[in-house]
Amino acid sequence: MQKLYHGAAFYPELWGTEIVEEDILHMQKIGLNVVRIGEFIWSYIEPNKGEIDISFLVDIINRLKDHGIDTVMCTPTATPPIWMSYQHPERMHVDKEGTVMSHGARQHICTNNAYFRKRSAIITEALAEGLGKLPGIIGWQLDNEFKCHVGECYCETCKAEWHSFLKQKYQTIEQLNTAWGTQIWSQYYQSFEQIPQPTATPFLHNASLSTMYKLFTHEKITEFANEQAAIIRQYSDAPITHNATVFFDLNQSLLFENLDFASFDTYAVKENISSFFMLCDLYRNIKKDTPFWLMETSTSFSASLERYASPHPDGYLQAEATYAYAAGAEGFCYWLWRQQRTGCEITHGSVVSAWGQPTIGYTNVLEVERIRKELEPFLLSTKPMQAEVAVCYSDRAKAYFQTEPFNGIQYKQIVTSFYERFISLGIHRDLIMEQADLDGYKLLFTPFIPYLSSEYIQRAIEFVEKGGIWIVGPLAGGRTINHTNHTDCALGELEKQVGVHALFTNPLDGTNTYGEAFGITAELGLWSTIFDTENGENIGLIKEGLGAGKAFIKETKKGKGKIIMLGSLPVGQQGEKMIEALIQHYVRQAAIKMEIKTTPGTAMIPRVDKDASYYVIVNMDGKTSKVTFPKKSMVWKSNQILESGSYEIPAYSYRVIKYGF
Amino acid sequence: MQKLYHGAAFYPELWGTEIVEEDILHMQKIGLNVVRIGEFIWSYIEPNKGEIDISFLVDIINRLKDHGIDTVMCTPTATPPIWMSYQHPERMHVDKEGTVMSHGARQHICTNNAYFRKRSAIITEALAEGLGKLPGIIGWQLDNEFKCHVGECYCETCKAEWHSFLKQKYQTIEQLNTAWGTQIWSQYYQSFEQIPQPTATPFLHNASLSTMYKLFTHEKITEFANEQAAIIRQYSDAPITHNATVFFDLNQSLLFENLDFASFDTYAVKENISSFFMLCDLYRNIKKDTPFWLMETSTSFSASLERYASPHPDGYLQAEATYAYAAGAEGFCYWLWRQQRTGCEITHGSVVSAWGQPTIGYTNVLEVERIRKELEPFLLSTKPMQAEVAVCYSDRAKAYFQTEPFNGIQYKQIVTSFYERFISLGIHRDLIMEQADLDGYKLLFTPFIPYLSSEYIQRAIEFVEKGGIWIVGPLAGGRTINHTNHTDCALGELEKQVGVHALFTNPLDGTNTYGEAFGITAELGLWSTIFDTENGENIGLIKEGLGAGKAFIKETKKGKGKIIMLGSLPVGQQGEKMIEALIQHYVRQAAIKMEIKTTPGTAMIPRVDKDASYYVIVNMDGKTSKVTFPKKSMVWKSNQILESGSYEIPAYSYRVIKYGF
Amino acid sequence: MQKLYHGAAFYPELWGTEIVEEDILHMQKIGLNVVRIGEFIWSYIEPNKGEIDISFLVDIINRLKDHGIDTVMCTPTATPPIWMSYQHPERMHVDKEGTVMSHGARQHICTNNAYFRKRSAIITEALAEGLGKLPGIIGWQLDNEFKCHVGECYCETCKAEWHSFLKQKYQTIEQLNTAWGTQIWSQYYQSFEQIPQPTATPFLHNASLSTMYKLFTHEKITEFANEQAAIIRQYSDAPITHNATVFFDLNQSLLFENLDFASFDTYAVKENISSFFMLCDLYRNIKKDTPFWLMETSTSFSASLERYASPHPDGYLQAEATYAYAAGAEGFCYWLWRQQRTGCEITHGSVVSAWGQPTIGYTNVLEVERIRKELEPFLLSTKPMQAEVAVCYSDRAKAYFQTEPFNGIQYKQIVTSFYERFISLGIHRDLIMEQADLDGYKLLFTPFIPYLSSEYIQRAIEFVEKGGIWIVGPLAGGRTINHTNHTDCALGELEKQVGVHALFTNPLDGTNTYGEAFGITAELGLWSTIFDTENGENIGLIKEGLGAGKAFIKETKKGKGKIIMLGSLPVGQQGEKMIEALIQHYVRQAAIKMEIKTTPGTAMIPRVDKDASYYVIVNMDGKTSKVTFPKKSMVWKSNQILESGSYEIPAYSYRVIKYGF
Repeated sequence: MQKLYHGAAFYPELWGTEIVEEDILHMQKIGLNVVRIGEFIWSYIEPNKGEIDISFLVDIINRLKDHGIDTVMCTPTATPPIWMSYQHPERMHVDKEGTVMSHGARQHICTNNAYFRKRSAIITEALAEGLGKLPGIIGWQLDNEFKCHVGECYCETCKAEWHSFLKQKYQTIEQLNTAWGTQIWSQYYQSFEQIPQPTATPFLHNASLSTMYKLFTHEKITEFANEQAAIIRQYSDAPITHNATVFFDLNQSLLFENLDFASFDTYAVKENISSFFMLCDLYRNIKKDTPFWLMETSTSFSASLERYASPHPDGYLQAEATYAYAAGAEGFCYWLWRQQRTGCEITHGSVVSAWGQPTIGYTNVLEVERIRKELEPFLLSTKPMQAEVAVCYSDRAKAYFQTEPFNGIQYKQIVTSFYERFISLGIHRDLIMEQADLDGYKLLFTPFIPYLSSEYIQRAIEFVEKGGIWIVGPLAGGRTINHTNHTDCALGELEKQVGVHALFTNPLDGTNTYGEAFGITAELGLWSTIFDTENGENIGLIKEGLGAGKAFIKETKKGKGKIIMLGSLPVGQQGEKMIEALIQHYVRQAAIKMEIKTTPGTAMIPRVDKDASYYVIVNMDGKTSKVTFPKKSMVWKSNQILESGSYEIPAYSYRVIKYGF
Repeated sequence: MQKLYHGAAFYPELWGTEIVEEDILHMQKIGLNVVRIGEFIWSYIEPNKGEIDISFLVDIINRLKDHGIDTVMCTPTATPPIWMSYQHPERMHVDKEGTVMSHGARQHICTNNAYFRKRSAIITEALAEGLGKLPGIIGWQLDNEFKCHVGECYCETCKAEWHSFLKQKYQTIEQLNTAWGTQIWSQYYQSFEQIPQPTATPFLHNASLSTMYKLFTHEKITEFANEQAAIIRQYSDAPITHNATVFFDLNQSLLFENLDFASFDTYAVKENISSFFMLCDLYRNIKKDTPFWLMETSTSFSASLERYASPHPDGYLQAEATYAYAAGAEGFCYWLWRQQRTGCEITHGSVVSAWGQPTIGYTNVLEVERIRKELEPFLLSTKPMQAEVAVCYSDRAKAYFQTEPFNGIQYKQIVTSFYERFISLGIHRDLIMEQADLDGYKLLFTPFIPYLSSEYIQRAIEFVEKGGIWIVGPLAGGRTINHTNHTDCALGELEKQVGVHALFTNPLDGTNTYGEAFGITAELGLWSTIFDTENGENIGLIKEGLGAGKAFIKETKKGKGKIIMLGSLPVGQQGEKMIEALIQHYVRQAAIKMEIKTTPGTAMIPRVDKDASYYVIVNMDGKTSKVTFPKKSMVWKSNQILESGSYEIPAYSYRVIKYGF
Repeated sequence: MQKLYHGAAFYPELWGTEIVEEDILHMQKIGLNVVRIGEFIWSYIEPNKGEIDISFLVDIINRLKDHGIDTVMCTPTATPPIWMSYQHPERMHVDKEGTVMSHGARQHICTNNAYFRKRSAIITEALAEGLGKLPGIIGWQLDNEFKCHVGECYCETCKAEWHSFLKQKYQTIEQLNTAWGTQIWSQYYQSFEQIPQPTATPFLHNASLSTMYKLFTHEKITEFANEQAAIIRQYSDAPITHNATVFFDLNQSLLFENLDFASFDTYAVKENISSFFMLCDLYRNIKKDTPFWLMETSTSFSASLERYASPHPDGYLQAEATYAYAAGAEGFCYWLWRQQRTGCEITHGSVVSAWGQPTIGYTNVLEVERIRKELEPFLLSTKPMQAEVAVCYSDRAKAYFQTEPFNGIQYKQIVTSFYERFISLGIHRDLIMEQADLDGYKLLFTPFIPYLSSEYIQRAIEFVEKGGIWIVGPLAGGRTINHTNHTDCALGELEKQVGVHALFTNPLDGTNTYGEAFGITAELGLWSTIFDTENGENIGLIKEGLGAGKAFIKETKKGKGKIIMLGSLPVGQQGEKMIEALIQHYVRQAAIKMEIKTTPGTAMIPRVDKDASYYVIVNMDGKTSKVTFPKKSMVWKSNQILESGSYEIPAYSYRVIKYGF
């Protein structure tokens, strides 16, 4: 990492030369050093099919560079021009109800359409070739927020691609019929061509079909991203990313595999800081040891014609930026520099207004810039410390829950609410993808992942054998790779490998079933696995209700470590306490360091250099907050000594502490 | 009735030979003596068009019989195979919005499609011919849950059939135009072909058109059932049924007319026992003097991918089975034996899990079997006593309310809430269809039936003249056979025959109108009929609000009996009290026996043999309950004498009492 | 104005000769002197294409006239016959989702369809020619409730018309591209033909496109109305109207420009009297100095198959009629005379039932007639006094808010809630359209009008310069004629003309921002404009939260008057108080007379003749109410002197007072 970037999305194509000049000078003046451009520019640089002229961009990028501003260049494939969409309904995205999208917003053309792919290759090659070596180009962003407005497409192209995907996956129709158990409800297919897309039926589709369609969608958008990245790499050495976020219809683990660095967009409001922390913890780990970018955030509030968010309180933006940089961000960028004049986001917060004046968030942007400069030396000479606790995140699991939400489970929501327990306990954690390396972790949580691959189970068990503690569940392992039930035992390979015995799987909500663990009694809810009490240690026992006398938390030793099967979700306030007790219990067993305590609303990011460890402590909620050191510490840079004790962190401000030197 | 059946739905086509063998032995071991098979098996026995092979079924049915297990054989027409649906959108069910259903769930093909009818006839004939004489076959079930997932179909076939239906009903277009009053809004039709199906319009369709389309749908599904039954009867003497329930889009009165016995499915949870009682009271009376079957219920909880119910408390299943058998069920069957491996119901409760182990409901199934054996001698030697109180139920009325819900009336809900008053008063009652014989009843209730046929009114009046008491309303009689208003008086023939005078019909909700009857004052709600005070006796008078001084309950003597017109629905807690007071008042006048009292949550079913009468008393809510006898009684079988007084019925258990011997 | 009309909608085509005769006699007997007929009669008078016979109408109108009943004749174009709709999907209205409407309700054919326009011209010409000179015809109503069930149509005809509309408006595609800023999201169009209708997209359409489609819809329905009116005027001198109301998709300012008098329909229930007042205040002013008609109201309750309203309390109807007549209505008419026998409104309240008997509202109709007779001499010799306060109402603003509701703003609702402040303060006010003459007003309010035309701003400033006080905002002036942002300053021409400086525009909801004005501190909400404190007087200052220290209410002197910029909406109870304080403050400054005080629920309408002024005081809420005169008054007609002091107005009754003579 050479420097910290601070910038904004910039749309010079929408404004005249004078305003663009004014804007570049203004950015330079306030210290912005990067812009992201071009993600919707297609019609401007190829107004008629084949008439591509990117000289405007060459000029802009060079002018920006002349003023000390680097560029993240986007491919413009999120908004194909009218000459591609007009009178071509067969190219358009089609939703589940069969509605054909019209031109005028974004993502209106199916990304699997062959003509779209061809024209996308041409425009991207033109950009890569023409801009790839410009000194101002420091990175590329593919498209914009893949699958943010649309999910699965149901067009005829997708139907054919779906059949190819299935053919490749299952080889013969008989193998598919067997895997999906299609004799149920006489679904049985005689050929791949007959398999429907999961459109309207009188009742639900087969779970296998629904989930496979989602995985198909994940794979195809990744295929498009890879095609595009390959083109760019022929002409440019600048690293490639994509601005994702967790609620898009993506498998990010696949998507980022072949990209160079991870980025995300977030418009989390102050009420939702745990979501913001989670994104930082996740994107820091998607491409390990490579800084991530926070590619879009609002200077104050997000908005479109139909809704707006409450503006941030004064000071919040600085705290957000400080935390992001400390958590591993190389870039912190606003959407957008100048408020839109037209379109459907004319109300969205920005750095300057449509008439070029400071907005309500402007002074906070200046503050962010001040902090960036202040922290840059520290952040360039240290790096985020790997956590000892890892929580596994899975976009494939999200797809399973979309097919099978049980009683309304939303993956992101339920994972966040589990993840929030770590925040409230002040435990530093990484959010990692399923395929992530487990080296260096002491405690691994795998909640809410219905299908666990053999490879994953194997890897987790190796982690355990080497001394790790693995807490698996709730709702983990009960489904096969085809989204079906196991037929050998409740949890399949997981159950057998761990050596426990699951008796029942069924809901517990509404049954007044209570379990006890760690001295806490809580109601149990959700689709649960109930274990017998014979093998392993019975950490949680059902005291009352269905399955009384049986276990819902089992602990099994394995090599130097142990596996904890969490069969149910304790609910209510007592349930939260029980999960916290479980975490604390195993944090202690794993001897995980938790030296510094903060009051809620204040977050810590540990960082290291080769000699020492540091904490960046950020007051995120604007209330008076306190941090307590058990040992003597030193304030970074000023080298002021802090005796052990409690210190106040003023609203939205931060401290960097060299700890226990 | 030869024996009581206890069984489960079984899908041998979904599992290999070994598991099927294991399952048959397991069923035999725990005493199950019937399975229901085949309702979704079409693709398995006719994988390609015309390649029908039912030897698998012959073998299974015989093997089952060898292990003491009888079979209810289903026709598989709910799930037509892919060779019928693929590339035939014109055969598919089309919903009101015009969406064409895709293959993959159930009921995806229009049951009026000629090709579907033809292939259904062929497959059913093959089954009837090949299996009809097997000793294991004790009954047939047509299709599965007709119209449970889909209601009216809007395909082109249905459009043509709809025109034929109307032509047959109205003969000339002028008669239809007159009946429907189509000069309103220039709806006027020049020919039957012009009459639309009730698809999207800027505002509502003519009530006549909407209701007729529903009645058309009822008639056509009955026509299909009758076609299928006729085929089976050529080859098999086993009785034929269908597994219906009240919320499907059916006119059960028509449907069961030509079937041999009534069946229903219920997944009522413990919070909803009044719905369960209602189903037993209704299906017992659909085919008078013929035992009904409870064809599907869950061992513990129902579920699909998108939702699950709370499992029953331990013990509830036994109470449910005891009540059902006592109320007249010959069969009590689970859906399903073995949890599904694949599909969209992989979470649904079962007897054994997908891996063949006992589920959470398993021990309750064993208990049901114990009770079945215990009660069988008693139940085979007695039969349910006809009630003295009848409440009329009408699927045609349901159709009227679907067209005209006034302010959100749902027929089943409003009937249930009226019906619950009988439960809370502990009055034994029958739920009867409109065309049911009224012999043997003393008190007849006809609430919420907008259209009363001349024949019905005539029959009810004859019942009254012979001494019966008929309570008619609220919302009864105000609409004609064409779903229009009367033009001679508010309630048409009913009003004239009874000899009262309705002044106004209008809503009373929100008007602070209060009525008094039986010493109780209650707010009046709903679309109401207000009567003058001149003819008959004014049982309920409006004290305040709209129509003050007029009557809302009128009593008129007729022959040896009387007719009570209930013009309005008293609402709120006082309203419930007023309805209960009304019921009790006329129960007393009709000299209806109500000897035994129970605490709420405990239900009684009276049964008789030629010598005596008995009560089966079931604790249905799991709380401590009490039953009180004013006279000496005797415990069935043990012949233990119970002095008059109160006795406890433990949670979910039952007592059989020979009463007042 | 020659007399007051009191009447009902009448459908002689739906009933036989005898009933029609009975009805005419009945109307005459109870004093009704006008009917409205024919608005759905098309199929009756043109059963087959071209076979037009209107002799039935000639006869009816003459018979009515013979019985002293005049006729408002409607064109029947809201319900085109089946011969126009059958097998012509291309003629039907198509909704945003692409659903093609079916025959059977109203407004099912696209009013822009050329064939519809042609057939409408023919039928209307036949009616105008055949009936235009009949002595019974006192007026015409075009169609019925334009755009009440449908809004924008998305058929192919509309697509072509849309392109023509845009071509005419923007001349060249480049000018449109520039105006709409279509380089955003690569929307850029190469020709007018490519511009989509705003159908489904993955996200929102460009605001310009969405709003223009609404304005296109407004213009086209006006065009149709004008075509029809021109035909009638060839044959008839009777004045032409249309029965509109504020929630239809119309620009009434355009629509009524070429019509002769204004009419509206209202089914407001007693809980919603402010809506009723608002309609009277608006329609009185649409055609200045021409009496309006209340063309439809219910005698007691409105209803259709799917819902019904609570009936009015006894007495409410009289109060409604008294107020309407006093507020300037020439006609007060019921929908409908005789309850429908068939269709989808069989439950709707009426004067007589489907069987010809009095309904629950009947005696109130008799009372209205008594009052009409009582008040007629007074009302014919006086006229409503123009208010000194005007509040501007804009259907174009409604369109802007439909495109851009910010956080869920519904124009009618937010305007009503602002307007209610005038009611609670007892201030007589006019609701005026944007183009209305400002002469005679002292105080002008312009809230919630995102786009203010140059012409409007100019006119308002002239009003100010002559001494008027103009209060503009919240949410006024921030958008251009193309529904885009200004690029010179926040509020464009308004801001520059007024000479204030808007610093920021952003939401304040949820930010705990408090402002102070008139000694009241209130939370500020909504999308707000924050001003600097330098120019003009700072009437409202932000005390806390975002923009603290800046202004949200600015006052600027201009000529003899002043302009008050209201940048934000104060919310909550304190917010209502602040708005009331603002109104009162400027009412005092403008020296507006508010002599008489009433308790809430009692309304006053001032009227004048050449000598004196009068107040009609109506008890509208049925509670005991009080009116207080500071000076001696005289009761109209009785000439009884009332000393200054308080007097009671009994429930739903009225007093006419000659004041301060």
